[in-house]
Amino acid sequence: MSTPTSHYQPPLQDIAFIHRHWLAAEADWQRMPAHEAMDQETADMVVEAAGRFCADVLAPLNGGADLQGCSLEQGRVRTPDGFPAAYAAFVEAGWPALACVPEAGGQGLPQLLDAALHEMLASANHGWTMYPGILHGAYACLHAHGDEHLRTTYLPHIVSGRWLATMCLTEPQAGSDLGLLRTQARPAGDGSYRIDGSKIFISGGDQDMSENIVHLVLARLPDAPAGTRGLSLFLAPRGIPRDGTLVPNGIHCDGIEKKMGIKGSATCAMRFEDAQAWLVGQPHQGLAAMFVMMNSARLHVGLQGVGHAEMAWQLARAYAAERRQMRVQPRPADAQGPADPIALQPAMRRILLDLRVWSEGMRAIASWVAHQLDLSEHAPDAQERSRAHALASLLTPVVKSFFTERGFALASDALQVFGGYGYVHEYRIEQTLRDARIAMIYEGTNQIQALDLLQRKVCASGGSALAPLLQVLRDEADACAAAGLEAQFAAPLRAWGDRLQALTQELCAGAQADAELAPRCAEDYLRLTGTLCMAFAWARAVRVSQGLEDASLREAKTASAHYFFSHGLLDAEHWQRRIQASAVVALPGAL
Amino acid sequence: MSTPTSHYQPPLQDIAFIHRHWLAAEADWQRMPAHEAMDQETADMVVEAAGRFCADVLAPLNGGADLQGCSLEQGRVRTPDGFPAAYAAFVEAGWPALACVPEAGGQGLPQLLDAALHEMLASANHGWTMYPGILHGAYACLHAHGDEHLRTTYLPHIVSGRWLATMCLTEPQAGSDLGLLRTQARPAGDGSYRIDGSKIFISGGDQDMSENIVHLVLARLPDAPAGTRGLSLFLAPRGIPRDGTLVPNGIHCDGIEKKMGIKGSATCAMRFEDAQAWLVGQPHQGLAAMFVMMNSARLHVGLQGVGHAEMAWQLARAYAAERRQMRVQPRPADAQGPADPIALQPAMRRILLDLRVWSEGMRAIASWVAHQLDLSEHAPDAQERSRAHALASLLTPVVKSFFTERGFALASDALQVFGGYGYVHEYRIEQTLRDARIAMIYEGTNQIQALDLLQRKVCASGGSALAPLLQVLRDEADACAAAGLEAQFAAPLRAWGDRLQALTQELCAGAQADAELAPRCAEDYLRLTGTLCMAFAWARAVRVSQGLEDASLREAKTASAHYFFSHGLLDAEHWQRRIQASAVVALPGAL
Repeated sequence: MSTPTSHYQPPLQDIAFIHRHWLAAEADWQRMPAHEAMDQETADMVVEAAGRFCADVLAPLNGGADLQGCSLEQGRVRTPDGFPAAYAAFVEAGWPALACVPEAGGQGLPQLLDAALHEMLASANHGWTMYPGILHGAYACLHAHGDEHLRTTYLPHIVSGRWLATMCLTEPQAGSDLGLLRTQARPAGDGSYRIDGSKIFISGGDQDMSENIVHLVLARLPDAPAGTRGLSLFLAPRGIPRDGTLVPNGIHCDGIEKKMGIKGSATCAMRFEDAQAWLVGQPHQGLAAMFVMMNSARLHVGLQGVGHAEMAWQLARAYAAERRQMRVQPRPADAQGPADPIALQPAMRRILLDLRVWSEGMRAIASWVAHQLDLSEHAPDAQERSRAHALASLLTPVVKSFFTERGFALASDALQVFGGYGYVHEYRIEQTLRDARIAMIYEGTNQIQALDLLQRKVCASGGSALAPLLQVLRDEADACAAAGLEAQFAAPLRAWGDRLQALTQELCAGAQADAELAPRCAEDYLRLTGTLCMAFAWARAVRVSQGLEDASLREAKTASAHYFFSHGLLDAEHWQRRIQASAVVALPGAL
Repeated sequence: MSTPTSHYQPPLQDIAFIHRHWLAAEADWQRMPAHEAMDQETADMVVEAAGRFCADVLAPLNGGADLQGCSLEQGRVRTPDGFPAAYAAFVEAGWPALACVPEAGGQGLPQLLDAALHEMLASANHGWTMYPGILHGAYACLHAHGDEHLRTTYLPHIVSGRWLATMCLTEPQAGSDLGLLRTQARPAGDGSYRIDGSKIFISGGDQDMSENIVHLVLARLPDAPAGTRGLSLFLAPRGIPRDGTLVPNGIHCDGIEKKMGIKGSATCAMRFEDAQAWLVGQPHQGLAAMFVMMNSARLHVGLQGVGHAEMAWQLARAYAAERRQMRVQPRPADAQGPADPIALQPAMRRILLDLRVWSEGMRAIASWVAHQLDLSEHAPDAQERSRAHALASLLTPVVKSFFTERGFALASDALQVFGGYGYVHEYRIEQTLRDARIAMIYEGTNQIQALDLLQRKVCASGGSALAPLLQVLRDEADACAAAGLEAQFAAPLRAWGDRLQALTQELCAGAQADAELAPRCAEDYLRLTGTLCMAFAWARAVRVSQGLEDASLREAKTASAHYFFSHGLLDAEHWQRRIQASAVVALPGAL
């Protein structure tokens, strides 16, 4: 076997299918004043240019960065070869500003296009993507909560990408539990503050890619109450802009982690010593200001799951087509040599089909959620904005958790296609698997997301938070029925909507008497919701593809949809049974 | 958080429970002439000493070896610091000879004890374990197929472990398909042969731990037919013993792989150039001779899955007990400080319970299969030997595949307990996850094992190969019923035996008309079989633990059994539905 090239091919055809047919996004854009100048052709051009950047600039650096990793030399992080130059090109091309508003110097393009960009970035080079990963969140946070000084001094550099940003939450004793944070802030008397404390797991806490680093730091003011209600958000720059220069601040990188994957990303232990900082938003309201960043960050993490699934699918497909082992029965007409491509083996076809069905279905759903974010901000009708916001809020934890869990599992399935080659560096799938694993942890572990969905959103609303999704499932079932797809798609989709509703009502009722019921059922409930979103994705895909001129695309979408409804939807049965078992059987105490 | 110690605790209590109560092995030993001197106390002492070696000598080297890896210096492999000394201690203590027959210089102990040793080796240091990993297989192969010269010259050194062995199968173009092997052997005229060819993925192909290396090599004689029927097995030593010295042979290590895990193990690309070799067994019968090694190797790989699950369980349990995040409701009586141990959170309790239930259940089944190997060789009654052989043959692919798949999945579940710490080196669970992944691939991929089970064993026998397992499930159901465990354990176990039988009959019938039916269904069929083995394990565990004096052990086993039957057994439903769907719906062709 020759070693494969590092070539990543942006999935432009499928993205265009989703934008054009599955979402019909152009019609929505034209209804939104902020996007009325946007058309599908422009969107295609943006996505194509983003894909070219990912494939030509980032993907070739991915394998080498994994071997080289980052180093800490005299207190400064050195990123892998090529990373700084690639970032300069990213800034030069204006990608950081893609979805920032024009008033702040951005391009004002829909979040839907930003979503396509972020999926492709993760496929091409997840480690590199960590550096600009929080840029849009930092922009959104400062745009919403920064005062005049912060918006004037920092926002333009963040929008342009010339200064990178970090999110400094975690401390050694405080991971999922931000209430335990200890970092202190005290007023300096001049309107600024001084910060002391240690933060860990800070992605890009130091690097050699941008001329300055803007840290957004959660800390406690002297009079702060205990717990999360005593947290305030501060901006602490690595270099303090003064008289045209950057004055060094009391911020130090004490170490970088040895990690399982995303080795190109420097995960830093940071020390703030009398570091000058400025309050973002109101005192003790830091969590609210920070959550502006977290929500867009969570969608991006879900898109990483999609990107890893896509990369795994591309790698496995190419290998399976080339690698010859065993004969298949009956032999293909063009059979030659003593063995056939393993892509013809049933076990490999199953894995490849799973990869295609899941990567395309997850892409549709993640794009749809990004599109809801655009609608929630810019739709002309208040009710439509509110409905879009409700859908995005409900589904963000699903996209974050379910898609990252699937991205990891699919990368492992794809690795199996390679046999022994899957376990060695050159074939790159083992890197995809290692890189994919972090997405199940950061930005709130998948367990935390599941509690967010079932306990804080669905059960806390008495089940009504689920209503917009149920409506979507029913509307799609009706549309499928009207398109002649009753038996195979509309009927099961409608039935599953009813089952989800009934199950949710049972859980909401049960949770009132049993405080542990929702935590016991939360993960499988999230998986059930995610599986039904996939069913929605494929029902709509088969419906809208009926009118396509491209016969091969139409046939592929139809085959995928049938496979998902005959096999993938069996998972929903499984999650439902598990939820029902967990609802009635208590778990033993601590083991 | 303080960094955890590298302490591995051998699961002596559970191993003793399995040997003493679950298997009641002593009574069987006393019926077998080869083991009649064996008693449970001696067995406990052997296992305890093996566990001490694993915990004290091997476990402390595991994390460092992962960081250091192997290097190739002037054509020779250098293994990680401490590996050669640990191997010298292993040889000194006589562990290589554990299950070899006394006539060959071995200790003649049951394979059941060898199984316990191999599970613990994998937990403590999978990378190191790769070097002696094939010793027992090489012994079995030479003992069965070697001629006088080979048995005299090589066997004693292999039994003592002073010389290590490798299994040289794979070539770049031939992984799962051994029929494609190209390495050539030609007669040298003096009774020996000369070998030319390249082999890859050779574990321990070179190392600095033993004074000689004995390669067992598949190659083709000049007149050999194409395909696997033209393969012969040869022994090619690195140093040819002559007049008291070792004369260098034409065997070279050209490179070592950069791998995802088991980095302490040197995975070598080997070149044989006019290498002197001796035929093992008959010409063109190499595969049969090699399969003597493969079967014991496959059980060992399954035990690696058990060992990884055990290690993951130990790591997660210790971390969850110490790490404090969030409050639980209601708060525990001994609550202190602002947060409670995460071991009290329902999501974490679920993961910990899964880890306990699966690691203990898989250990019982793997031990049972090892015990069947002892019975198949040494039981006094021919029918009992034949039944034991049939069970071991049927279940070896299940133990190899299902337990390695579960070992990997459980390591990933355990990693999630650690949050961000799970992704960094010091907490060691990420190494367990990476190391565990190889076991799904080598010694025949899990897909190949699934075909072996359903196609080559079950369907080829018209379903009768399954009969001994069905009998075991029914016998256990009857025993549970007699012990007052009818409703919760006997009834579902009996019902599942019937369902498995009916499903198998359908598949055997369907496979006659549809050549792809078995390959489509094989993986889920293997998972269903594995899940029902777990049900058997827990039904027997709850039954035999009823009489235990140790109340905490009895209660733990009872709680685990109830959890498996209320939750774990739901998986069986899922596998059955998937098999039924796959049986009727064809897959699309190559994608």
